[in-house]
Amino acid sequence: MFDFKQYMKNQQKRVNDKLASLFVPPQKSRVLSAMQYSLMAGGKRIRPILCISAASAVNQNNIDVLPIACAIECIHTYSLIHDDLPSMDNDDLRRGNPTCHNAFDEATAILAGDALLTLAFEILSNEDLSTHEPQTRLNIIRIISNAAGPYGMIEGQMRDIASETKRLNEKELEQLHLLKTGALIKASVIAGAVLAKATDKQQQQLSVFAQNIGLAFQVIDDVLNVKGNPKRLGKAVGTDSDLQKNTYPGLLGAERAEEKARQLVKNAIESLQDFDYRAEPLRAIANYIVRRDH
Amino acid sequence: MFDFKQYMKNQQKRVNDKLASLFVPPQKSRVLSAMQYSLMAGGKRIRPILCISAASAVNQNNIDVLPIACAIECIHTYSLIHDDLPSMDNDDLRRGNPTCHNAFDEATAILAGDALLTLAFEILSNEDLSTHEPQTRLNIIRIISNAAGPYGMIEGQMRDIASETKRLNEKELEQLHLLKTGALIKASVIAGAVLAKATDKQQQQLSVFAQNIGLAFQVIDDVLNVKGNPKRLGKAVGTDSDLQKNTYPGLLGAERAEEKARQLVKNAIESLQDFDYRAEPLRAIANYIVRRDH
Repeated sequence: MFDFKQYMKNQQKRVNDKLASLFVPPQKSRVLSAMQYSLMAGGKRIRPILCISAASAVNQNNIDVLPIACAIECIHTYSLIHDDLPSMDNDDLRRGNPTCHNAFDEATAILAGDALLTLAFEILSNEDLSTHEPQTRLNIIRIISNAAGPYGMIEGQMRDIASETKRLNEKELEQLHLLKTGALIKASVIAGAVLAKATDKQQQQLSVFAQNIGLAFQVIDDVLNVKGNPKRLGKAVGTDSDLQKNTYPGLLGAERAEEKARQLVKNAIESLQDFDYRAEPLRAIANYIVRRDH
Repeated sequence: MFDFKQYMKNQQKRVNDKLASLFVPPQKSRVLSAMQYSLMAGGKRIRPILCISAASAVNQNNIDVLPIACAIECIHTYSLIHDDLPSMDNDDLRRGNPTCHNAFDEATAILAGDALLTLAFEILSNEDLSTHEPQTRLNIIRIISNAAGPYGMIEGQMRDIASETKRLNEKELEQLHLLKTGALIKASVIAGAVLAKATDKQQQQLSVFAQNIGLAFQVIDDVLNVKGNPKRLGKAVGTDSDLQKNTYPGLLGAERAEEKARQLVKNAIESLQDFDYRAEPLRAIANYIVRRDH
């Protein structure tokens, strides 16, 4: 029987140790302190663990996917720091702590985000990964930069800001989230799969998996924002509706939104039917998404 | 006789055409518009031309260095957009036009900068460059990301902000500029050289060249800011001293600062003594730096 809790705990520790090692020896630089502050603020490490789990799903050999997983977490963290800025979502709290620009200042937060994004590509091109074929590594850099760039995550954030003053329909809201959170989640899964030499068909199936869980993740995020417990969530509750943001519960009602999330997770798990027991972690992560309370 | 003006014009056109092609077909996305606005605002393209010229200096074959040169210009432009932000240098004009956050808004400018940085790595990992060895391309990604990151350009900008409220000595000012502008200029030269398969010795000599012209460039920038013509400069004159910034003319006086720049250019050109006529463009760029008036 697959012990999901223990698996998450183990993988989180591996990711956290690797991320912490980026800041050894301890640095006195202000920008490194701000990077470390946000990166080590207790994220759930969903994206790196998806990357690791996707690699395991297609390859029984223990390939070294950890640096790539950590580079993706750097990109995710940069996007959170910049999204929280006063000119963006203007958030004071993140995971229960002051946001980066509150703990430091706005200029430092912008630079810390820039630096985490840049560091991700330094990690991806570093000699650490030299056991992998250079062409495979270039493909992974392309997949990740494409997902994080102006046709992916950044366009999603741009639409998110624009949507604050207009009402989106369900299709538009879905498009927004497929870009804003879906693109990097998909890249996390595909990067792991590509490193493990997944076939085109496996990549296609994992892509459907990732798209569905990415959207489910966002739907549940919206639901939790409406009804969640602010202490466990680590941020203010009800802020999205305060900002007149478009959310799934706002569009569909909380009940239908939760039903939608369950359907998405069902689709995700069905897309893995050709995979064996090695995809168990991916299936468990999909189920976890609708069960989580923060 | 090498015609420097014509050379610069030709190379600028090549770089501009390639950069413009990144935005074809025309895009309606706001973030792409902002990226295009800043990228096509008439920069001198010094960094991409250094990259191209360094490749030419070590290899007579016409290797395809243009995408790498353009990726570096994307990184340079992102750094300008973010440096101009209200929480950083708070500049209204750049190259005679409203800065990105003035022409658009702050959130869009932050995202446009993020997107240009990400796009650079997409270009560097793209199939366009597949005639080059994958390992060489990974090395170039590592050189550029290292120069642009928290141990290079970003640390320089962080120190620049911190220095607004304290007096630096000449050594500290030099360190600041070696990071803030020197690191990316050096990476431009070395990236071109590595692509052209420069020997370690050639890389070492080009590195000395780049370090010297990078610093000379900054010294002259400071001098022009004190005494330049605001119309030709395209930005307000005297702003640095308004902000009590540390500058070379402030530290040394204008005359000794100009003398320092001339000495740095002399050192740069001497470092190329083992190179033949193919390094003529690099020598001409070095001379241009002290002669320019904007």
